[in-house]
Amino acid sequence: MPDGADPAAARAFRSDWDALGGVGRDSRSGGYRRFAWSREDATLREWFIGRAAALGMEVVTDRVGNLWAWTGDPDAAVAAGTPPLVLGSHLDSVPDGGAFDGPLGIVSAFAALELLRATGREPEQPIGIACFADEEGARFGVACAGSRLLTGVLDADRGRALTDAESVSMAEAMAAAGLDPGHVGRDEETLRRIGVFVELHVEQGRALIDSGDPVGVASAIWPHGRWRLDLHGHADHAGTTRLEDRDDPMLRLATAVTTARAAAQQQGTVATIGKVQVLPNGVNAIPSQVTAWLDARGADPEAVRRVVAEVSTAVGIEAMEESWTPSTDFDGPLRDRLAALLGDVPVLPTGAGHDAGILSASGIPTAMLFVRNPTGVSHSPEEHAEEADCLAGVADLARVIEELA
Amino acid sequence: MPDGADPAAARAFRSDWDALGGVGRDSRSGGYRRFAWSREDATLREWFIGRAAALGMEVVTDRVGNLWAWTGDPDAAVAAGTPPLVLGSHLDSVPDGGAFDGPLGIVSAFAALELLRATGREPEQPIGIACFADEEGARFGVACAGSRLLTGVLDADRGRALTDAESVSMAEAMAAAGLDPGHVGRDEETLRRIGVFVELHVEQGRALIDSGDPVGVASAIWPHGRWRLDLHGHADHAGTTRLEDRDDPMLRLATAVTTARAAAQQQGTVATIGKVQVLPNGVNAIPSQVTAWLDARGADPEAVRRVVAEVSTAVGIEAMEESWTPSTDFDGPLRDRLAALLGDVPVLPTGAGHDAGILSASGIPTAMLFVRNPTGVSHSPEEHAEEADCLAGVADLARVIEELA
Repeated sequence: MPDGADPAAARAFRSDWDALGGVGRDSRSGGYRRFAWSREDATLREWFIGRAAALGMEVVTDRVGNLWAWTGDPDAAVAAGTPPLVLGSHLDSVPDGGAFDGPLGIVSAFAALELLRATGREPEQPIGIACFADEEGARFGVACAGSRLLTGVLDADRGRALTDAESVSMAEAMAAAGLDPGHVGRDEETLRRIGVFVELHVEQGRALIDSGDPVGVASAIWPHGRWRLDLHGHADHAGTTRLEDRDDPMLRLATAVTTARAAAQQQGTVATIGKVQVLPNGVNAIPSQVTAWLDARGADPEAVRRVVAEVSTAVGIEAMEESWTPSTDFDGPLRDRLAALLGDVPVLPTGAGHDAGILSASGIPTAMLFVRNPTGVSHSPEEHAEEADCLAGVADLARVIEELA
Repeated sequence: MPDGADPAAARAFRSDWDALGGVGRDSRSGGYRRFAWSREDATLREWFIGRAAALGMEVVTDRVGNLWAWTGDPDAAVAAGTPPLVLGSHLDSVPDGGAFDGPLGIVSAFAALELLRATGREPEQPIGIACFADEEGARFGVACAGSRLLTGVLDADRGRALTDAESVSMAEAMAAAGLDPGHVGRDEETLRRIGVFVELHVEQGRALIDSGDPVGVASAIWPHGRWRLDLHGHADHAGTTRLEDRDDPMLRLATAVTTARAAAQQQGTVATIGKVQVLPNGVNAIPSQVTAWLDARGADPEAVRRVVAEVSTAVGIEAMEESWTPSTDFDGPLRDRLAALLGDVPVLPTGAGHDAGILSASGIPTAMLFVRNPTGVSHSPEEHAEEADCLAGVADLARVIEELA
């Protein structure tokens, strides 16, 4: 056990970490495949409900399928004019993602409660722990779908109609998982229960390595978006079709990839084509269609838009915007208060989107804690956090609870 | 019915065509997905066995899973020093392929036998109709796997170990389909039964459109091959990883695609990257790996090899050769005899590989008939042949049987 770590918190953390470790793990890549409304997702949600029950918390599913575990009656707190503090994050993953992105925030929240209980410091105010649905958007293409639907940022009809690679709609996937998709939509009842939201997350970058701190506080989330490029061509035989008779969309994919990189370099942003679907994807067939997804982010929203426009121009079609999230500056006073509380820890921006960003943008006072990642790598099996840093995060989260609740 | 078409042959052709039309058809693309050793493949093989039985033919499965329907005892003919004439083709398809590539040759062979029977012209010599397994190589990456394994051109161990996209080996797929993969290997018993092989195939190009003929005879198959490019990178978060810290294999895919096209143009060949697999293929993840397959063909084998070498150099790794087929010149006297028999029809080369090419390269006198394709397109739902041209092909195949058997 690291110096200064509470034994109860450490036990809780390790036990939960072990319980989650095998769910949705791909034995080949060593990464996780935990997609929204899948069998693995159901297992994770069951774990969440059981974990909360073991702490005497009641779990409520909101209209869009996010889970909310409560230590007390949030509505009584709302009625008393003190809407509760909510912690939490998500349990889903990108394909072959790491173990920490999402689960660390939820496991740490439960462990922080254990720590406060073990030391007799649990607040009387009800505390919430949220498990947001479909944060990564790996299946339906829209990140933070759970918080976007909850706040109404994502229209219910548009969300329900999103489809996965097998043409299953989000509504169908929700129904198969036992949720009534007819209820999907902005959920006022749930939203008014959130007085303050604090999400702890593994750092997705190297700032805390450089500063030498186990924990930091978020300042802002860069504006970011996803665009789809439907590159149409003409399927034909790879061996018998003359080059001059071809309409091969793979050539336009190459143009999109090189243009995105060059434009991002010039505009000082990042841009990535990380997902590609080829039809029919046969060795000896010129593709009929290549679909590529462009992810672009940067401090300056106009620069991001210029990158997307350059790619659209280069491939001769308009990139379809699947999501766009403007810059999110987290609540300034809350950010400064937490940074000071935790010992003047670093305050840093991030290029990654989070449910915390969606809640913040809809006016809920929101903060994020980052836990150091010694690889700097995320969305990969290499994503990591040392146990000592995780337990420092748990201890800091406990201090945040004491401070805010 | 087109002028001059035999009613029995036309009925047989239409009935078989209708029977096959629904098997493995993708309702979205309108194309076919008939992959080796799949459920659809099993349905097609059952159809073949039933169709042969209806003509009183006995069907033998060879050591590698190709089907051979015989009107009489081929071994008696071999013993008598007159090994039989075999017709045939394949029933599998590329992803979203057309209806004609493969099935036309088999359906036409059965219809030609019906035609000869209906007109009292069926030869006494046994006739074979072959259904080759896994001609397209769509599942395991090696085209003409059935004829390559039969002739030993593809080593049995290498074939068995080939894997599909789900990491299922060919041996496992064969076993699941009821074939003993332990028996796979060069099959002398089957090979010595083939006196002459004639494959009728839909044209994959526009030569017969230009010449105005419904049927042509093949002269040669261009040398052709498939190479795999394993482009490794470093998985990381698309939003938080600086451009200069990235190792993104999608950029090397773009290089491979543009280099292949430019080199093919310069070398006077064709080259295609039609199949791509991205890992993990997440919108917000820099890929850890992109695998691309390069198909290259041309009249000059050295020119083809130069294209592959240029791509290898451009992406900084050696392209892995998955298959290579040297130029195949079909049997000259047989080719001339059939072209004259059918009324001096055009004699044309092709860039597409065929089981006929594999058999020809192993020393079996082999010929091919091509049936006009009014779109010129193949490996696509647009691939087509008019019924009148198909029935002309049936009539010509019947004449070939009379001539050779």
